[in-house]
Amino acid sequence: MTTTDRYLAFANSAVGSRLANALGLPRPVPLERMPPFGDTETREIAAPLAVVGGTADAPLLPGLARELHWLGVPSLAHVERLDWISYANQAGTMSGRFNPNEGVRPKALLFDASAIADTGELSALYTFFHDTLATLDRCARVLVLGLPPSLAPTPQASVAQRALEGFVRSLAKELKRGATAQLLYVAPRAREALHSTLRFFLSPRAAYVSGQAVTLQDPVFETPPMRDQRPLAGQVAVVTGAARGIGEAIATVLARDGAHVVCVDLPAAQTPLEAVAARLEGSALACDIAAPEAGVTLLAHLATHAPRGLDILVHNAGITRDKTLVRMSEAQWQSVLDINVGAPQRLNTTLLDAGVLRANSRIVGVASISGIAGNRGQTNYAASKAGVIGMVEAWSPVLAERHISINAVAPGFIETQMTAAVPFAIREAGRRMNSLGQGGQPVDVAEAIAWLAHPASGALTGQVVRVCGQSLLGA
Amino acid sequence: MTTTDRYLAFANSAVGSRLANALGLPRPVPLERMPPFGDTETREIAAPLAVVGGTADAPLLPGLARELHWLGVPSLAHVERLDWISYANQAGTMSGRFNPNEGVRPKALLFDASAIADTGELSALYTFFHDTLATLDRCARVLVLGLPPSLAPTPQASVAQRALEGFVRSLAKELKRGATAQLLYVAPRAREALHSTLRFFLSPRAAYVSGQAVTLQDPVFETPPMRDQRPLAGQVAVVTGAARGIGEAIATVLARDGAHVVCVDLPAAQTPLEAVAARLEGSALACDIAAPEAGVTLLAHLATHAPRGLDILVHNAGITRDKTLVRMSEAQWQSVLDINVGAPQRLNTTLLDAGVLRANSRIVGVASISGIAGNRGQTNYAASKAGVIGMVEAWSPVLAERHISINAVAPGFIETQMTAAVPFAIREAGRRMNSLGQGGQPVDVAEAIAWLAHPASGALTGQVVRVCGQSLLGA
Repeated sequence: MTTTDRYLAFANSAVGSRLANALGLPRPVPLERMPPFGDTETREIAAPLAVVGGTADAPLLPGLARELHWLGVPSLAHVERLDWISYANQAGTMSGRFNPNEGVRPKALLFDASAIADTGELSALYTFFHDTLATLDRCARVLVLGLPPSLAPTPQASVAQRALEGFVRSLAKELKRGATAQLLYVAPRAREALHSTLRFFLSPRAAYVSGQAVTLQDPVFETPPMRDQRPLAGQVAVVTGAARGIGEAIATVLARDGAHVVCVDLPAAQTPLEAVAARLEGSALACDIAAPEAGVTLLAHLATHAPRGLDILVHNAGITRDKTLVRMSEAQWQSVLDINVGAPQRLNTTLLDAGVLRANSRIVGVASISGIAGNRGQTNYAASKAGVIGMVEAWSPVLAERHISINAVAPGFIETQMTAAVPFAIREAGRRMNSLGQGGQPVDVAEAIAWLAHPASGALTGQVVRVCGQSLLGA
Repeated sequence: MTTTDRYLAFANSAVGSRLANALGLPRPVPLERMPPFGDTETREIAAPLAVVGGTADAPLLPGLARELHWLGVPSLAHVERLDWISYANQAGTMSGRFNPNEGVRPKALLFDASAIADTGELSALYTFFHDTLATLDRCARVLVLGLPPSLAPTPQASVAQRALEGFVRSLAKELKRGATAQLLYVAPRAREALHSTLRFFLSPRAAYVSGQAVTLQDPVFETPPMRDQRPLAGQVAVVTGAARGIGEAIATVLARDGAHVVCVDLPAAQTPLEAVAARLEGSALACDIAAPEAGVTLLAHLATHAPRGLDILVHNAGITRDKTLVRMSEAQWQSVLDINVGAPQRLNTTLLDAGVLRANSRIVGVASISGIAGNRGQTNYAASKAGVIGMVEAWSPVLAERHISINAVAPGFIETQMTAAVPFAIREAGRRMNSLGQGGQPVDVAEAIAWLAHPASGALTGQVVRVCGQSLLGA
């Protein structure tokens, strides 16, 4: 299902690591990931210890204390924010003061910057991270929490909140040994809807996501009672392109989290498709999503397998037909646009009109860095994937009124059969040109989708989250 | 003022070009630029010939015909859009049918995609560019005109319009020999406000801008009678950091376009500052913009030199103090934030409150790719430049009510004394990692600022335009 990154293995072997060190070669760290399907042991949190800080006014800290308690994350307070200890105590956990000289190795740094009112006050970020960064454990997580600039009370506060993005993206590029950094913009009405997002980022699920700015806004649906063991139990998900690669990983992760997964793929892939569905105890539907009758076929299948309606729809199926525009055929243009962005829109409309996608359901698209940055030889693919981003942007306000969310992930270099076929030099460039120095795995994309599809992710809609290890490429 | 790109010169020499060809080395093309200051000869247009296309319904074509007539650009019609010939005739110019086999070398391709209503209709782009791309002259311009996705009549149209961005960014990466591509989203009420933007992009002024999506929205002030010879005659501009480098180039271009330029820089730079001001027949103000009294000092100077108020304010002054956060001093953090984003906000407020920045004035900030993508060793600088982007985003709606625009440019790798000091390997990577295979010149940043500061640019506000040759780096 995936190709091996031999250099990653070499650079982490006994001989290889000394050689890489001596030659000044990159030394990517094997990323911590969740245990595979079938291991029902929860290992929710990669963060045995978090250090918490914030500005003098830090309105997110009480809620954060409750979440860390729920997630079982112990914490220490930065010296500038010692009232954290009493918030933690009130939430039911012990805490203490962080001392950088005591040799503790925090696995998470959390900073509430949401009350910063002008760019001068950003120096609190400097103080906190200057004190704590050097103590970080491997594969650690940095989370800066801000206020969406558009909701800031003054233009000055808006500017300061927007500045956080430049800070976090730079910090993510300075982190070493598999650590990542994100910016979470939290709207005031999303303060009680942080759960699924902290669960994602404070765990190995978010291994390959870094340098992202994610906005939690007014929830479009209510957070259900929390249940993390199998959060999707009793729910039905449709995953297109599920017979192999990233689609198979998405189906696997959603099934691991408890969903009945309807695995959809082309009739030509029926054999592997049925094997995936059988392994996951889901169902298989061999059907060309670009065919005119696809909507009707899917509705008929769901009438049997999801009589109460659909909870999750993942538009993963997609193709590439790479050529420079001068050499591209019209068929290569048309098929990529129709399968990658035409079909998902038609399926949405069919399932919405039929009432199968109801309140509380979640739609997730798969975009691409090509759709953000453009790519030589991919005018068709990049247009289709920019269209997927457009689908998220255009549909999210419409669907919000129906209490449905729509988001997308934008994968970078992911190790699949497709990327294994890429010529060596280009493959190596793609693998290394990111802050983690390695390609991602299909499961990394799948975990991000499971986060956006989590029943508690009602504050997430209209978001496009890159799963790219903070690739250098962008627009 | 600038460093030489020796490789560019070599690869375009007789021996070098053959060697580069044989070795498969990059062969960046010397970019066409406007003649230097003092040459009052207008050479408005680098495009002796444009080929025009569009979908069946192409509402921008009549206005485009009038603009091309005004700009003196001859045109031909793509076979799918032969009614262009009558639009051109109505506007007062001859036109004809484009035949790719006749050996014509168009210098511009213009396509009206603004009426595309779903992703299926995007195939019209394929047809037009598939037919025309191979005929392009060197340093040519591709402009795709769309409708802002947020203004599209349906979600399907919005998706298709958003898809244009992936298409244009990919196309820009496929172009060769100094050609560039942009996407111009034109709001219906901006259709009569295209002039300054076409004047910029259809000329050598836009040499180093590529792969950008620019939105022309409801104008915040009216377009004055057109006058392109010296469009800033009678106007007053303030440029901070004007003693050298990019600031000197900005002052020079604004003066070339007719403005009286108030050149501001630190007292330590008084000698070069006064030389620049004298050369441009402007005035010099030695003043630390970050000092508390800066606003008062500037107001006093403007009372003499701009008794009727200020027309253009360019926040160019900025500093870097690069260190990883762990090694950075608090002073290095504070000074970068204060000078780069604190001071511009204070100056804006002072000049607005004093009524010196009035209706029809234009503010332009200087951001950076670091502020978009983040950069290792630049947490302070990237935060400050993301803050400049925030200043544009937060202030543009507020200032629109006062008929004032605010925009920013975001330079990529520009050849200056600062970049000349960068180590060789990093400098070469910065120079080559963009679609034009070379660094930009200070004048490229200056020309983009002069476009945003043009009196006819009332449809441009809230925009951040990269001047980076479509650098690979981004977010």
